[in-house]
Parts: sequence; structure tokens; C-alpha cells
Amino acid sequence: MLQKMLEQVRAHTPLVHCITNYVTVNDCANILLACGGSPIMADDPEEAADITSICNALVLNIGTLNQHTIPSMTLAGRRANELGHPVVLDPVGAGASALRTNTAHALLNDVRCAVIRGNISEIKALALGGNSTKGVDADAADAIDEGNLDTVVAFAKEFARKSGAVIAITGAIDVIADANRACLIRNGHPMMSKITGTGCMLTALIAAYLAANPNQHFESTVAAVCSMGLCGERAHARLSSADGNATYRDRIIDEIFRLSGDVLEEGAKYEIR
Amino acid sequence: MLQKMLEQVRAHTPLVHCITNYVTVNDCANILLACGGSPIMADDPEEAADITSICNALVLNIGTLNQHTIPSMTLAGRRANELGHPVVLDPVGAGASALRTNTAHALLNDVRCAVIRGNISEIKALALGGNSTKGVDADAADAIDEGNLDTVVAFAKEFARKSGAVIAITGAIDVIADANRACLIRNGHPMMSKITGTGCMLTALIAAYLAANPNQHFESTVAAVCSMGLCGERAHARLSSADGNATYRDRIIDEIFRLSGDVLEEGAKYEIR
Amino acid sequence: MLQKMLEQVRAHTPLVHCITNYVTVNDCANILLACGGSPIMADDPEEAADITSICNALVLNIGTLNQHTIPSMTLAGRRANELGHPVVLDPVGAGASALRTNTAHALLNDVRCAVIRGNISEIKALALGGNSTKGVDADAADAIDEGNLDTVVAFAKEFARKSGAVIAITGAIDVIADANRACLIRNGHPMMSKITGTGCMLTALIAAYLAANPNQHFESTVAAVCSMGLCGERAHARLSSADGNATYRDRIIDEIFRLSGDVLEEGAKYEIR
Repeated sequence: MLQKMLEQVRAHTPLVHCITNYVTVNDCANILLACGGSPIMADDPEEAADITSICNALVLNIGTLNQHTIPSMTLAGRRANELGHPVVLDPVGAGASALRTNTAHALLNDVRCAVIRGNISEIKALALGGNSTKGVDADAADAIDEGNLDTVVAFAKEFARKSGAVIAITGAIDVIADANRACLIRNGHPMMSKITGTGCMLTALIAAYLAANPNQHFESTVAAVCSMGLCGERAHARLSSADGNATYRDRIIDEIFRLSGDVLEEGAKYEIR
Repeated sequence: MLQKMLEQVRAHTPLVHCITNYVTVNDCANILLACGGSPIMADDPEEAADITSICNALVLNIGTLNQHTIPSMTLAGRRANELGHPVVLDPVGAGASALRTNTAHALLNDVRCAVIRGNISEIKALALGGNSTKGVDADAADAIDEGNLDTVVAFAKEFARKSGAVIAITGAIDVIADANRACLIRNGHPMMSKITGTGCMLTALIAAYLAANPNQHFESTVAAVCSMGLCGERAHARLSSADGNATYRDRIIDEIFRLSGDVLEEGAKYEIR
Repeated sequence: MLQKMLEQVRAHTPLVHCITNYVTVNDCANILLACGGSPIMADDPEEAADITSICNALVLNIGTLNQHTIPSMTLAGRRANELGHPVVLDPVGAGASALRTNTAHALLNDVRCAVIRGNISEIKALALGGNSTKGVDADAADAIDEGNLDTVVAFAKEFARKSGAVIAITGAIDVIADANRACLIRNGHPMMSKITGTGCMLTALIAAYLAANPNQHFESTVAAVCSMGLCGERAHARLSSADGNATYRDRIIDEIFRLSGDVLEEGAKYEIR
């Protein structure tokens, strides 16, 4: 299944409109090219809907949201909904400020999202209204481990049911859920958390997979999350003892560029629960 | 000729003011440093003209244009014109939205450009008013090949005559034209299209070459385009089978950093037509 | 002393709020992760103070300041002052435009800064009101060398006394001063000036060191500046003859990631004057 999904991305070159933060935007563009997609970034309200119209998917990432780009997100999101394009929401830092929490909630109300991807603290802030997020990283108290997995799975399914979106909670163990199914993914490497933007890059990847594999939101998300985690493992295996997080970032994008469907199929470690 | 032009860049450290998109801005800054120039990015209307005044060339790149930076482009462009500084326009995504097409046209009306660089779809949108651009990449239907080269050359010369600018249409084969001459350049590697920003970086390079070689707009543009393409070839030759587009990006900038005049002279593949 | 200060950063994972330019923001985020800190970028006036509240230090970098982010800097700076969080000001390009010079002065008036870091031209523009800055690099006429060191040290101490901040003037020789003491640092490599953002990255590092080592502004700044310079040396030693400034950038961040307290202690070249 995963093999085919990756091959669809490479075959169809989905054009992904990203309204995203300026911190990791270059990496998002390069990882979209690496997976076989094509990026376009455009965040002015006067063109946001126009650009979405010529694309195949939309990313809404609030990592450096501002008064100017928030309306663009709504305009682009509504247009994407009208056209049936998948929308992926990345509520970066939801819970860390009222502006982020409120904006994420407003987007969730105004735009039908195919997938919502965040760390556990961000997703909790969105689902429960809490404010436990510590900056843009998950709060340690929220960390997913074997002990609380069943609770997290139930929470994710419930939020999927309420929101109508596939929920992707990423961390040491990733939990992907729609209202009826959940998938646990155990790919990845802890050092990925020492690179800025692995979450943002994954969100962009998910959008490319969704666009290339219509009507398979859950499976596409699983495929994209496995791809990112597996490439994180493979890139880490290639690091020398002198390399650090900057080289690691480039190597992960390189691995996404080189990833073949059969390597993905073989390396993916997921479990339906 | 090319050798001397590169050496002039290294000798004079031209300061290049860039009003450019936030996707590839870091790469533009590093490639300007790599070639021997110096970058300064400034896009607020209150300082755009001031900053241009202390620089030697100006880049106007509309890749993530917005209501706030469009007036800055006009202000900086007019000041550059007053001071006789070369202006390079990169109409990223012209044809992809009304805002981009209209802004590119307005800039062309308000600012005298030394060079306009884009892919064939962008340049067509600018010259002919069409809207065939697919995102920020050239539409396949527009691709330049041996069969339509003469048509593209005639089109480029005509647009150069009308606009008063050197036209640089970049792709598998690059076409550089002023009203009377055209140059075809066959350097480069297809994998360059898998990196975000090779076009933006080239636009920045052109500005540095123009600033260091006054009154030689056509020749400077040819030299810069050959430099980028040759470094794309040389960087590709250094890639291992595990490397992807992220490493390739860094290697291209590295090659620009290392490029010597004689290597450029020897490796450039251009033909005046 | 330096060893302990680095270890404190790694032990405490200081969260650093950066209102910084979009040119080098990704490198700032990755170097903060590399040193053991955690970055959050947020520049909208509606959330600037909220985000600062959950962080441990604040960076104000005016490299691509605009009408929208200038008020955010003031709001965040004042909140940081109320909470006793250290604020580091990087007056990028002060002296290059009235907007930059005036904004840097206004921030200095409105916000109590723990450290001000810039090149000699920027610091002179701030301290003396001059406008000799050439873009974002120091003017050659201002360069610090053995011949004018005593003058620069006296100038830095006087500006530290007036501003109440530790002054960090970085260049071939770095001068760190408070009202009573100065430290000269001779780490680093000339090629660091061929990478965009080494100054911005250092500013972010200083903020992380300040946050992790309370009430030791002078010593923390010395430790951060030595770290950056030493990693510049170590990264340069690893470059091959084919590498250029793009690879060098990644290697410097990698070295910061790998840097241990004892390597720092042993490699730091500083002198109290």
C-alpha cells in the first residue's frame, strides 16, 4: 500500500500551496520537491485563493502567523474546500499564545481540514482548549509512551470524530487516527527533534501524499508519516561522529529525494490498533 | 570575456539590495557572498529607497509579494533608476495569479529594468499577458527545445526591444537576448529544477555581475547564467548516489564560491545567434 | 568557567523568543537547538508579549525590520524587562538607513538590554549616532586591529556604562565589555564573514547562554562568543578544497551541536583587558 502511494506522488507531481512560517519554509519547499511534488508559497489575501485554485492541496501552518496572513489562510482554505482540495492544518504552537490557540480554532471552524498534524500538546490545546504548550515543542508531561498509548489513541479517535479530520499526533511514537481506526508508527529517530521544522516538513509531505492519492486521507497520512520517520532513520545511519543537526537536516531531505516505494514498504513500522 | 567579468565581481564586492521572497532568501544571500558580492535585504517602504542608495544593484523578486512590499519595490526601483543602478526583475509566478501578473506589469511600467529573468511561462505572461503559468515552474507546453528555439529567440529579442531590458529566459536551454543579439546557453543539469530557488539565486548573481561590470548588461547576464549552469554541472558531478537535492543545493553554492575565471571561461557553453 | 556555562545551556534547554530577520532565521533556530536551547519565533504584536512570557530570553534583531514587527519588538522587550528575562539586541544595519538607526535607538530607550551585539560600524552608529555603516557589514575604515584595540575597548566600556548593557563588538578580534571590564577574543576564521548570518546566529547563542546562566551577563557573552569562534575554527579545519560557504555554514552549526564543555574551555582564546 505505502509503495503505491509514494509512487503516485512521483507520478503526479502534486502542486502544494503552502501558507507557512518563514522559519522552515525553505526546507518545506525542498522536501516537497524531494518527494516528487512541487511547492508554491503565497500568503497575501489578494492572491491566496487564486493560487489555491491552480494547486492540488493546501497547507495552513501557523508557525509565524500574523494579522496579514490569517485572513489569507481562511480565504485559501475556503476556496480549497469549494474545489475539493485537501487541506492540512499544522497548529504550530497552539496553546502557547491566545493568538495561536484562537486562530487554530477559527481555522478549524471555517475550513474543513483533511488532516490536522501536530505534537501532542498542540493537538490537546486544539481539542481541549488547554494551554499547556511550551513553545513549539511538546510539553514533557504530555509525552506519548507505551503506558498511555491507549488513552492517546482514544483521544485522537474522538477528536477525529468531532473534527472530521484525520488526526496525526507525532512524537516518539506517532498516532494517526480517523473516527474508526488508529495507526501507531514507530519509525524515526530522537535526533529529529534537534532540527527545526521536521514537523513542518512532514505536514508538507502529508499534503503531497493526500493530493496524489485522492479519497485515502488516512492511508496517505500513514504513508507520509512513515516516509519521514524512515528517512530520519536512514539519514541518521549515514551521519559521522562529527556531524550535527545541520547536516542531519540535509540528509533527511536527501533521503526523501532518494526514497523508493519498496524501501518504504519494507522499512515502515506501523501497527493498526 | 567571462573570466574578466567574474574577476570584476570578486574585485569590487558589489552590494546588492534584494527585495525578494522569504522562501529562498537565505540561499540568495549566501550565493551573493559566494560569488564575491555582498547582500542586503530590506523591504519596508520606509527604508527601501535609502537602502538602495547605498547599494550597487537592486533585485526585485515577487516570489512572496504582498501589499506591504509591493510599494517598496516601486520606491526602491525608482531610486535605483535615478542613481543609475541596474535593476533585475524576477517575475516569479507571473501568470499564476492576477496579483503577480499585475504587479509584474506595474513594475515594468514604473521601473526601468536592466534585466528580466524568468522561466518561459513567466516571461510569456509578462510579454503577452497570458496566464499559462503553472505555479512557479514553467508549463511543459512552453518548454524550450531545439525545435522551437528560433521562435523563442525572436520572441525574446522582440520583448527586449519593447521593454528595453535584457531578457533572460532560463530552462533546459537558456536564451539571453537584447534587441539585437541573442545567446543560447547549454550549461546546467536537469536536477537543478529539483532545488527550490535556483532561479532566484541566478537572479541575484546577475545583479552582482551587472553591478561589477557597468554598461555590459548583455554580457554580464551571459556570464552569470553560464556561472550558475556550470556550477550546477560541477556540483552534480560531486554528488554520491546517496545525495539528494538538499546536498545538491549546498554544493552549487560551494561551487560558485570556488569558481575561478578560467574554469568559467573554459566550461561555459554558449552560442551567439 | 566557560565549560560550566555551556553545560548549563545543555542542562536547562532555555527557550529563546526571537523576533528576527527572515534571511537567517532558520540558521538561528537550528543553532539554538544545536547548543541545547529551543527556539520560538513570533513577531505579531498580538502575541509578542504572550510568547515572551513563556520563554527564558528574548532576541531583538532588526535585520528585516518592518512597520509590523517594530511594535512587536517593543512589546516583547518591555514584557521581558518586567519578567527579568535577558534581552539581546542585534542592531543589524544600524547606520545603513534612518529607519534602522532610529529603531535601534528607540529600542535602546524603551527596552533594558542585557547585551547589544553588532559589528563595529553598527555599534558606532548606535553609540555615536553616525551613519558610516556600509550595508550589513562593517566598514573597512572601522576595522578593529591591534593598533586601535585600546581605543575600541575604551569606547565599548563607555557605551556599556551609558547603556547599561554588555557590549559585544564582533569582528576579526571580538571585544566584549561592561562598564568595568573588557575581554578580547581571538577565536574565529575570516571565512565566517562569507556566510550570511554568523552574527545573527551568535546573537541567538548569546541569548541561550544568558538564560541558562542568570546574573552573569558578561561571562555568558564571553562564553557564547568563544563558542561561535571556536566552532568556526573547527568547522573550517574540516572543509575540503572543494567546499565553500554553504557547507561551511552547516559545519559550524554541526560543531556547535557537538561542542563539549572541555573542548570549549581548552580552545577559547580570550584575554581580560
